[in-house]
Amino acid sequence: MKIYTKTGDAGETGLFGGGRVPKDDERVDAYGEVDELNATLGLARSLSMPADLDGLLQQLQDQLFTVGAVLATPQGTKAAAHIPHIKPEWVEAMEKAIDGFETELPTMTHFILPGGSQASSALHLSRTVCRRAERRVVPLLREGKVSHDVGVFLNRLSDLLFVMARVANHRVGVPDVKWIPEKPGK
Amino acid sequence: MKIYTKTGDAGETGLFGGGRVPKDDERVDAYGEVDELNATLGLARSLSMPADLDGLLQQLQDQLFTVGAVLATPQGTKAAAHIPHIKPEWVEAMEKAIDGFETELPTMTHFILPGGSQASSALHLSRTVCRRAERRVVPLLREGKVSHDVGVFLNRLSDLLFVMARVANHRVGVPDVKWIPEKPGK
Amino acid sequence: MKIYTKTGDAGETGLFGGGRVPKDDERVDAYGEVDELNATLGLARSLSMPADLDGLLQQLQDQLFTVGAVLATPQGTKAAAHIPHIKPEWVEAMEKAIDGFETELPTMTHFILPGGSQASSALHLSRTVCRRAERRVVPLLREGKVSHDVGVFLNRLSDLLFVMARVANHRVGVPDVKWIPEKPGK
Ligand code: B12
Ligand code: B12
Ligand code: B12
Ligand SMILES: C[C@H]1O[C@@H](n2cnc3c(N)ncnc32)[C@H](O)[C@@H]1O
Ligand SMILES: C[C@H]1O[C@@H](n2cnc3c(N)ncnc32)[C@H](O)[C@@H]1O
Ligand SMILES: C[C@H]1O[C@@H](n2cnc3c(N)ncnc32)[C@H](O)[C@@H]1O
Ligand SMILES: [Mg+2]
Ligand SMILES: [Mg+2]
Ligand SMILES: [Mg+2]
Repeated sequence: MKIYTKTGDAGETGLFGGGRVPKDDERVDAYGEVDELNATLGLARSLSMPADLDGLLQQLQDQLFTVGAVLATPQGTKAAAHIPHIKPEWVEAMEKAIDGFETELPTMTHFILPGGSQASSALHLSRTVCRRAERRVVPLLREGKVSHDVGVFLNRLSDLLFVMARVANHRVGVPDVKWIPEKPGK
Repeated sequence: MKIYTKTGDAGETGLFGGGRVPKDDERVDAYGEVDELNATLGLARSLSMPADLDGLLQQLQDQLFTVGAVLATPQGTKAAAHIPHIKPEWVEAMEKAIDGFETELPTMTHFILPGGSQASSALHLSRTVCRRAERRVVPLLREGKVSHDVGVFLNRLSDLLFVMARVANHRVGVPDVKWIPEKPGK
Repeated sequence: MKIYTKTGDAGETGLFGGGRVPKDDERVDAYGEVDELNATLGLARSLSMPADLDGLLQQLQDQLFTVGAVLATPQGTKAAAHIPHIKPEWVEAMEKAIDGFETELPTMTHFILPGGSQASSALHLSRTVCRRAERRVVPLLREGKVSHDVGVFLNRLSDLLFVMARVANHRVGVPDVKWIPEKPGK
């Protein structure tokens, strides 16, 4: 089978299990954004990422393919019985990771300018793309077309990526720069 | 307060001042894109950016948090009195910066292929994400839900980023490659 | 002519040939995303890209400006006679390139985690942005507002970028990591 099947040339494509939809369908848009998020994690990992963060990111990339499969498979179809599902343990593990990383870090009281080391900067980019993916999942959640787990997973992931971005700077001694809002009327 | 509050797990979230909206609300979408733009600026700054450009980018990152606050705060609410605002001087300073940088550069007569040095390439990426953010702000502008200043700020910023991308190449002797459109019918 | 014309400050802009539209118009959105795709290709090229891939990417960047011109020009206008068009040879050349690169590579049987070398990671990012651009073009295709060629071009390009991402890893001996889905019910 060639990788280019040409079947999508006219703007339609297939979900898992077979239904055909336009490529701007909400489902396709949602897993397309998750794919982009996954690509930004790959990019982050290529930019001198500390080994423990790198290992965790690889796990998260793997889990995102399950998220993608869930998004690509309409509920109640035969295909739905053949895909893996998001495990509650994954979310718990993210929460533990956040708690653990935060012990390394000074308490946050202000927004910080995203940036610093290349690894940290790329994680901030992933964080924002994760949040974009979450926004695209919201219509599916609202219409009951996708499991609540997807929303939880992405919501927690963006917070984990924030903390990992801070750790990536802190470990190399790069201070985060705070945003100090000016008093209005000044 | 933990960073993961879980209150957004079901796809709703809070604006500044308190109103709750779905995460695919136009306002949330708009400041989410501004956050992504800010992250791309952080990435650009991590890629051997000349010091004067770097300093300017840090200022712009800071200003973008004011843009974000303006987008996150419905007009006419109590909260609106507590946020900073976009200053006309910021836009004027961008215009001066564009004019200044252009004196360093050969006059433009053609589109250029985005790319060259890492710093320049990342600035082109920021330029295009800035324009995406601008597109997401447009519905809010049209409906009168956000100050005109936000549109002006982002419109000028994308032009500044274009000129900075060119400067980043020019300073290291990397020539920009022109797009020479073929005559139609060829 | 200054680069900042300020004519777009209120959220409207011009197409090629002159019609004025809001910046969140489907056409503007589509060529804006193609511009972003083009910027990610520039970034990929700045990250130690093998010379043959780099040359091919430059050609593709050039061709994307023709795609952009096609998207920016309403059909049937006077302006439409003055722009270059997407050539069938370009798509054929992409298909030949895919076939050629695949001879270098082990056969694919599983999804792979996007990532590896910086060049490969960046190409995966371009791949996903290409697919996002394709999704934004779909409404225009459906409404018959843009040539079918644009859909074909972007569909093939994302497959080419996938294969190039794999080649970029394979050439430097970085193995792609497979996603092995867990059996459901586990
Ligand atoms: C949803 C989907 C996606 C989504 C989400 C997937 C996810 N789980 O996160 C995303 C957007 C990521 C995606 C991307 C791509 N996909 Co896809 N995808 C699908 C789809 C619709 C379902 C796959 C799935 O998740 N199944 C659920 C799992 C649990 O079931 P599974 O059957 O065991 O899935 C296995 C196979 O599909 C196989 N497989 C998966 N991908 C590929 C790719 C190749 C080249 C091969 C040989 C096999 C293979 O590995 C999977 C895991 O073991 C299938 C078509 C279909 N209806 O089945 C296409 C399909 C697998 N994709 C395809 C392609 C070409 C791609 C891309 C290369 C497109 C591109 N240019 O970017 C990328 C590759 C990304 C990567 N990192 O490897 C082709 C593969 C053609 C081929 N055999 O050569 C298929 C068959 C669609 C088609 N008819 O064109 N995809
Ligand atoms: C709008 C908004 C955003 C927007 C835009 C902000 C902007 N101005 O550009 C964006 C999208 C950037 C954003 C991002 C994030 N945000 Co936010 N954001 C808000 C919101 C709704 C308003 C903030 C604001 O702009 N206020 C206007 C300014 C002028 O008022 P202010 O009160 O002085 O704002 C100060 C505090 O909010 C504080 N602060 C701000 N951020 C954080 C983060 C932490 C961890 C802490 C401790 C304090 C803190 O610093 C601000 C400046 O002095 C608040 C919730 C709320 N309703 O207040 C959440 C809120 C501040 N954000 C929160 C979080 C978790 C984040 C993210 C980490 C999410 C993520 N995973 O990406 C990032 C951090 C980004 C960064 N670079 O630091 C949490 C903080 C929870 C906590 N105390 O630990 C809040 C309280 C929402 C919540 N209930 O969950 N956010
Ligand atoms: C569509 C469009 C785009 C699209 C798609 C273009 C494509 N083909 O892919 C995208 C989104 C990429 C784009 C980006 C930009 N654009 Co534009 N774009 C246009 C538009 C509407 C049509 C251009 C076109 O494709 N014509 C079709 C080709 C075949 O016809 P052409 O007439 O031969 O096009 C030539 C000229 O336009 C010239 N040219 C093109 N760009 C520029 C930029 C400068 C600074 C100069 C001096 C000349 C110039 O070179 C082209 C090729 O020879 C024109 C306005 C208009 N109505 O003509 C603006 C226009 C050319 N763009 C403009 C600007 C400022 C930009 C950006 C710098 C904006 C930004 N901040 O990102 C970037 C530059 C990108 C780059 N890599 O160089 C300005 C240039 C102002 C000036 N003379 O200084 C124009 C005139 C709009 C305006 N009135 O403000 N653009
Ligand atoms: C930190 C703040 O970011 C906003 N918020 C919550 N989720 C998202 C998302 N997916 N995208 C953009 N903004 C979001 C809310 O306003 C929250 O309070
Ligand atoms: C240079 C050209 O880019 C288009 N243009 C103006 N603003 C945006 C934006 N935010 N996103 C995409 N395209 C835009 C207009 O067509 C302008 O003429
Ligand atoms: C590999 C799978 O990706 C999906 N697909 C096809 N085109 C796009 C696109 N532009 N964006 C996101 N997903 C897409 C289809 O479901 C296809 O089967
Ligand atoms: Mg959240
Ligand atoms: Mg503009
Ligand atoms: Mg395709």
